[in-house]
Amino acid sequence: MKRRYKIHVCYDGTGFSGWQIQPNAVTIQGMLEEKLVLILKKKVRVIGAGRTDAGVHALEQVAHFDVDAELECVDLLHRLNGMLPPTIRLLKFVPVGDLFHAQISATRKIYHYHIWLESILNPFLRPYRHHIRCQFSLEKLKEASKFLVGTHDFATFTNAGSCVRSTVRTMFRLDIVEQEGGVRAEFEADGFLYKMVRNIMGTLIEVGAGKRDISDINELLNQKNRTLAAAAAPAKGLFLVRVNYPIVDFSSNSSKPL
Amino acid sequence: MKRRYKIHVCYDGTGFSGWQIQPNAVTIQGMLEEKLVLILKKKVRVIGAGRTDAGVHALEQVAHFDVDAELECVDLLHRLNGMLPPTIRLLKFVPVGDLFHAQISATRKIYHYHIWLESILNPFLRPYRHHIRCQFSLEKLKEASKFLVGTHDFATFTNAGSCVRSTVRTMFRLDIVEQEGGVRAEFEADGFLYKMVRNIMGTLIEVGAGKRDISDINELLNQKNRTLAAAAAPAKGLFLVRVNYPIVDFSSNSSKPL
Repeated sequence: MKRRYKIHVCYDGTGFSGWQIQPNAVTIQGMLEEKLVLILKKKVRVIGAGRTDAGVHALEQVAHFDVDAELECVDLLHRLNGMLPPTIRLLKFVPVGDLFHAQISATRKIYHYHIWLESILNPFLRPYRHHIRCQFSLEKLKEASKFLVGTHDFATFTNAGSCVRSTVRTMFRLDIVEQEGGVRAEFEADGFLYKMVRNIMGTLIEVGAGKRDISDINELLNQKNRTLAAAAAPAKGLFLVRVNYPIVDFSSNSSKPL
Repeated sequence: MKRRYKIHVCYDGTGFSGWQIQPNAVTIQGMLEEKLVLILKKKVRVIGAGRTDAGVHALEQVAHFDVDAELECVDLLHRLNGMLPPTIRLLKFVPVGDLFHAQISATRKIYHYHIWLESILNPFLRPYRHHIRCQFSLEKLKEASKFLVGTHDFATFTNAGSCVRSTVRTMFRLDIVEQEGGVRAEFEADGFLYKMVRNIMGTLIEVGAGKRDISDINELLNQKNRTLAAAAAPAKGLFLVRVNYPIVDFSSNSSKPL
């Protein structure tokens, strides 16, 4: 009998070629599947809520996989953590009904992008901050980010290679929050296109640095042309923070609201 | 004319063989001297407030060096940071009077030791936390630490190899502070013997883990015998946080109180 399990995974993306399994590359999905097959003696496919790029971190990625067995979740969580590198940690391992799908059931995702603005970058945060060394206007960054909130066609801010039906997404929130050494941009949307956060950040940073006008953002959205936006901001500043799901009881197959 | 300069240095000790210069090893002092000689075209000796061991971190180590020239401090600070690895950052670079001595003038030092007590270690903090996986009593840790406050002969808690006149030190404060995932022990003393913090922590952790009685601490202090204490706690949990100096005007040679 098929059983579906949900896992929550935290990882430091620094040394990894991203989430998605690839030949001859060390990826998060690849590591999880490699260790699961050792324990379950069967190949499983781990499906993530989203594919983080090489070097992107996750505080709490969500994924699911199916097996033909009833698993001892707490025991397996600790065994897997014992086998995985310390840069990948399973935080939760729970059974779910087969109506749950880590990617399709997700209703919202939250990403944070961290920028360091002071001249001397804290050595302990160097793998997790994009260091901007030029004159930078926080006010311009804040103003420009407001144009991106709402329902828009984000085609300008995605890269070729993504095959999605629609490039329209709803950005519920894009807050610029001041923190030690700089700021973080908090993105909350019903979904993100390939490289969307980093492409938006690259352009917003050019506005903050005075290389673009604030009004460019609106124009870029209207033009739907990737070649007009800035280069993607570096992966190391980006964290997948949370994936939200509807409040239904995925633990059984009935999927009734709680 | 001889000029003395004071530098404040922050470093992630993970990849270094400690502060002190050694042949065939990458050390903080070695890196600083290597870059200074490139700029000054003359060998200088950088003297630190204290020698942190291999793997120990510093939020703000203090050091001084002498040169026969008037230096452009702000310019040099940025040039040195451009040459040093990103895991070592100069925070300050200022002229001082020659009565200032980074080690001898220091009146107090503060070290923090970080322990992770939850079962799953945060991947982002893994290089900076000692992970304890057994049943652990915070109450016992707090009780035991009180015995170490005050003026004591800390001979039991130093390693052979240190050549100091006296092993008596005054511990002004040893606070156990709860924080995300565990606790930190905050040590403030007029000086620390070789490996003293890690040796104390190793023993305190045994008390917290129920392997020693709280009263052992007092007995160990009285016995003045290193072989009776526990092994040193791992370097990665230890941070040199601050070095205090008397409030005198070290910027000139008059050394008058401010």
